[in-house]
Amino acid sequence: MTLVGAASANRGNSSDSLRRHNLSAVLTLVHHSGALSRSRLTKATGLNRSTIADLVAELIDVGIVMESGPGPNKAVGRPSPVVRPDPGTVAIAVNPEIDAITVGVVGLAGTMVKRVRHALESPPTAAEAVRVAANIVRNLQTEFDGSHRIVGIGVALPGLVRGRDGLVRLAPHLGWTDEPVAELLEADTGYPVVAGNDARLGANAERLFGAGRGVHDLIYLNGGASGIGGGIIADGVPLRGVEGYSGEFGHTLVTDRRDTDAAGSHGSLELEVNRDDLLRVLGLNGADPDELESALLRSASPQVRAEVRRQLGFLAIALRNAVNILNPELIVLGGFLGALFAVDGDFLLSQVAEHALPESYACVRITRAQLGSDILMIGAAELAFARLLADPAAFGNPR
Amino acid sequence: MTLVGAASANRGNSSDSLRRHNLSAVLTLVHHSGALSRSRLTKATGLNRSTIADLVAELIDVGIVMESGPGPNKAVGRPSPVVRPDPGTVAIAVNPEIDAITVGVVGLAGTMVKRVRHALESPPTAAEAVRVAANIVRNLQTEFDGSHRIVGIGVALPGLVRGRDGLVRLAPHLGWTDEPVAELLEADTGYPVVAGNDARLGANAERLFGAGRGVHDLIYLNGGASGIGGGIIADGVPLRGVEGYSGEFGHTLVTDRRDTDAAGSHGSLELEVNRDDLLRVLGLNGADPDELESALLRSASPQVRAEVRRQLGFLAIALRNAVNILNPELIVLGGFLGALFAVDGDFLLSQVAEHALPESYACVRITRAQLGSDILMIGAAELAFARLLADPAAFGNPR
Repeated sequence: MTLVGAASANRGNSSDSLRRHNLSAVLTLVHHSGALSRSRLTKATGLNRSTIADLVAELIDVGIVMESGPGPNKAVGRPSPVVRPDPGTVAIAVNPEIDAITVGVVGLAGTMVKRVRHALESPPTAAEAVRVAANIVRNLQTEFDGSHRIVGIGVALPGLVRGRDGLVRLAPHLGWTDEPVAELLEADTGYPVVAGNDARLGANAERLFGAGRGVHDLIYLNGGASGIGGGIIADGVPLRGVEGYSGEFGHTLVTDRRDTDAAGSHGSLELEVNRDDLLRVLGLNGADPDELESALLRSASPQVRAEVRRQLGFLAIALRNAVNILNPELIVLGGFLGALFAVDGDFLLSQVAEHALPESYACVRITRAQLGSDILMIGAAELAFARLLADPAAFGNPR
Repeated sequence: MTLVGAASANRGNSSDSLRRHNLSAVLTLVHHSGALSRSRLTKATGLNRSTIADLVAELIDVGIVMESGPGPNKAVGRPSPVVRPDPGTVAIAVNPEIDAITVGVVGLAGTMVKRVRHALESPPTAAEAVRVAANIVRNLQTEFDGSHRIVGIGVALPGLVRGRDGLVRLAPHLGWTDEPVAELLEADTGYPVVAGNDARLGANAERLFGAGRGVHDLIYLNGGASGIGGGIIADGVPLRGVEGYSGEFGHTLVTDRRDTDAAGSHGSLELEVNRDDLLRVLGLNGADPDELESALLRSASPQVRAEVRRQLGFLAIALRNAVNILNPELIVLGGFLGALFAVDGDFLLSQVAEHALPESYACVRITRAQLGSDILMIGAAELAFARLLADPAAFGNPR
């Protein structure tokens, strides 16, 4: 984050944009850390103590942060009050998949407040997904609106979402093409809605609040009911690509199979590594991510173990390619890929080690996502929080 | 480029760093464009006319740029003098490969001045490569030193070059491991030496002076006697990876062949797409890049055409993966990959179109490198010019 310099507490015209910038900087630090003493805010921003006190007071005033008594403080001198996000400020996250629509309420600092999963018999059309999501949003509004301020809605989508306008160009598993989901949900709910690719949002969530804190070069791979997506952070910046379609590792080639996946790609990662084959070998008809993981971990069946290794072997090829092309410091596996890693991670590591360039492999750690099944909710909520973080004062006081 | 603001012509202490910054900005603009009128420099920098006049005068004074009479000027008013790089300021570029060591003299604005290719019977050790290169450098020094200022040496290497210190961690085709080539060449020649990966330097050269001008998301793939390397520019910034080893597309999987390439990778792009197989089908023992291309274009042999298509088919798989993962705007093919594209580019395009995600494929153009066989020379010279561009005044006047 770039700080323009120390702002005076003066709200006059000439210092207005500087003050907005500083409010944004303070709120962003609190959001990313979860709780930060005033003295650490002073250090991190380079602003002076009275300016920080004043900025925090304004953020308290508009109901976005709160201050609690100082925690245990080993330093000499007066202990410094601790600034935390006000739990009354929340965003709504929406994630349509082929077998469910999940809607969540998420607080600042990546705090999951509530999650509602609406299971589906068959993949929804875009209009159905919007209708179901809007109904859940209205119920949540009734439940939360008196006590909370809902700043907006973020949608995580399993497909190519055009960066400049949020149009869903292609969601192959859902069978959607050119669907203006954000626009439709905004019209239906009245909240501002921003949409993005699920795995790219997951990458950002893990970087801010999970396994990727402090890491500058990371890849996140997400395995869901709707295939495998990925997000790349390069030198601290999310890699978008020219239209925002980067990270589609699920449709890269890892096998000589000639049949095609949902997007029409032959030999792709999704053909060999997928949730359906895991459910089949487990004898399950469906499962949410946590149920699938428990079933995999509990099973002692040699067929299940063999299927896990078969899938990890193909995942290793995609990771080898990613390691060679991107030289990341960290690869984070989420969704059922995280479950596969939990079952037999050492096998995956041995396979990547055998095939990636040794010098590049020596740079990388491979781990599972820390945010678990909340990751896409937290990632989607970031989209809705972005406007608040950029200009907190514009949000006024709702209550 | 970020400009701090208009600097006064005053050389006092307080404005020294601002003046250095502005000198750097003006020289960088002239370097990237090749020739720029003073009035366009004024517009591009936001500095005023007298400041630009003064900065240009200082750059002329130290022998880095020259001013020529105004060109044809359609605008009303006094025509503006045109600022060009002084051809007397040059860098030396070195590129060791398995069959030759090439050394070049390169001027600012990507101007190739002279190239010397020293053919080899067998791959050189690092010490041999340094010895050969240093001898050629001494000859060039004798030839150029009276009339030119040599600012330093850049080395383009076919392998993993560690970003922080330029150590060659691995050059698989040369058989080098952990070779401090830059350090050795610096000790032997007395010039400052900086080393980098050949394809990443090529990517930067094409972005600055070739097919990638003005493009923000591009991939460059280079095919040489020492395999296939790549460089990625993402959102205008070269993508390094955590240690600088990114872009190793040559060792990604594209085939189910189980034998291994020079780096020990099975199923890799280099196994299927390589210069040796082209030379064999052409019945040649060796060829420089231009000779190889002429031979391919001249040949009417069905075996040669079939081999070209076979290699392009596998190249298409690597490009499909790159398009899906990185969503680039442009892919530039250099070295023998450019020659393959020249022979049967439409076939390559049809193969990538068939297998990449259609939405991502619709974003990308695929073309050959414009800088031809000079590309690695120009890319390596950029390494040597970097210090000059950052602080031109520090270079004083040599003549």
